[in-house]
Amino acid sequence: MAADKLRGVFAPVVTPFNNDLSINLPAFVAHCQRLVADGAGVAISGTNSEACSETFEERMALVDAVIDAGIPGERVLVGTGCCAIGDAVALTRHAIDRGCAGVLVLPPFFFKNVQEDGVFAYYRELIQRVDDPALRVVLYHIPAMSGVPITLSLIERLVAAFPTQIAGVKDSSGDWDNVMAMLERFPALSIFPASEILMLRSLALGAAGCISATNNINARDIALAYGSVTEAARLNDSITSVRKAAERFPMVAAVKHTLSLLAGDAGWRHVRPPLVPLAADAALQLSQAMATAMPALRGVALPA
Amino acid sequence: MAADKLRGVFAPVVTPFNNDLSINLPAFVAHCQRLVADGAGVAISGTNSEACSETFEERMALVDAVIDAGIPGERVLVGTGCCAIGDAVALTRHAIDRGCAGVLVLPPFFFKNVQEDGVFAYYRELIQRVDDPALRVVLYHIPAMSGVPITLSLIERLVAAFPTQIAGVKDSSGDWDNVMAMLERFPALSIFPASEILMLRSLALGAAGCISATNNINARDIALAYGSVTEAARLNDSITSVRKAAERFPMVAAVKHTLSLLAGDAGWRHVRPPLVPLAADAALQLSQAMATAMPALRGVALPA
Repeated sequence: MAADKLRGVFAPVVTPFNNDLSINLPAFVAHCQRLVADGAGVAISGTNSEACSETFEERMALVDAVIDAGIPGERVLVGTGCCAIGDAVALTRHAIDRGCAGVLVLPPFFFKNVQEDGVFAYYRELIQRVDDPALRVVLYHIPAMSGVPITLSLIERLVAAFPTQIAGVKDSSGDWDNVMAMLERFPALSIFPASEILMLRSLALGAAGCISATNNINARDIALAYGSVTEAARLNDSITSVRKAAERFPMVAAVKHTLSLLAGDAGWRHVRPPLVPLAADAALQLSQAMATAMPALRGVALPA
Repeated sequence: MAADKLRGVFAPVVTPFNNDLSINLPAFVAHCQRLVADGAGVAISGTNSEACSETFEERMALVDAVIDAGIPGERVLVGTGCCAIGDAVALTRHAIDRGCAGVLVLPPFFFKNVQEDGVFAYYRELIQRVDDPALRVVLYHIPAMSGVPITLSLIERLVAAFPTQIAGVKDSSGDWDNVMAMLERFPALSIFPASEILMLRSLALGAAGCISATNNINARDIALAYGSVTEAARLNDSITSVRKAAERFPMVAAVKHTLSLLAGDAGWRHVRPPLVPLAADAALQLSQAMATAMPALRGVALPA
């Protein structure tokens, strides 16, 4: 893994499924290659990837497929957080072995109201068992799903105990104050908001980029805005429009629906339970909103 | 799996860990054998088993160990719910192959605010992929941990679609009204409250028994009370006292601490992160409360 600070625009890549809900690996690789060509990195096995709905073997296979296809490991983050430390250790070692830049680690998310000591012990056990100087951990704060927050005091303890291994935080809380607090207190960490709108507000304050679902459909513009203040100013409204159109709907289904429009392939709409595809009325609303927001969809005939 | 209605007192067996947090399999088997000798069945891989903190292979090995030790499959339930349907299918098939009486299935618990259609689809996929006439599913309602409730309307849809496979519900909500509502609406199902106190109130109304953490420390009395209204009347206060003493503390740590007192083996106190053992003051309070509540502990010298 890279010793440099992790930076950039990463897409938490959505996973295409076949009709029988098995993974469409060629479509997945092609999607990742497009994203990298557009200037983004790929975050495999994130929330938007439906990683928790995938088996251990499937998660390994997705990483292997991307690396085997020649995407440089430095452009790859891998979600390896699991409720069981043993599983997280194995997925993390695999990501390091394949040369990935870092791992994005959920706290254990079954038990709730756990003590900070217990969450600290989870990360400590993970880091100590992996025991590899190449390990770079991005802590994953997504309390609305995990139910277990990555608090500022937890980050502080982990950074103090493992200064080289704790590389950053992905903040999916959507809470601007929390992004600001992390940027102030942890300037050495890579802070990734989960929305490009928050990234645009926080880049000048030290944010490392973003790991945002809508990079799956808008990576080129977001990467341009990340790379240049001029482009950021030029693209701000357009990027914001696309994000806001998607945010009105359940995110995974919304991103996959939009990809189905961009690719002209309804297969992109498959999600695994417990997620469901957008209902017909929501799909139509999103299609219309995206046709307005995205230049690439203007003039395209839109099925629901 | 048995065609008869599932009934009885089941202990969601806690898992003993060695100092390095690996599973102490001999101690686990001995604990299960004691429970069965005391009149309880064993529910392996439940919440109190810290199943979500165990790898797939560990969960399989625990089932194998119990069956290989000669505990009859009809006394064994297995928790097989996972976020990934593929994992749940494999664990469920394994439980059926080993002759276990039924499987206890959590809803997928990473995504929150999911639609009922999505949770229904999860169980439908599981049942259809397992595709075995021996399958008996006990739905697992534990909203405080899973974040995804098993609603009455979901149960109704599942029973209508899979009348032979949906065998019951474990209700860990602690909500008496919900137990009552299920008993009224689903008389053909095995309804298991997660507390022996609620079991004692609901047995005459049709409850099937209980799947309760405190069976790990009090199985003999609870099984006696389950089997006889006379014993239930005689033991009601004592059973209630033990349960209430445990309920004041985080349950897994409290049960394990009490087992450490009963067995004279501090090794029972190990838990895996994110859980933590009881702090010293809580351990002392619990020790004192249990010394009062449990005849087996009267006169025993109690370490903290």
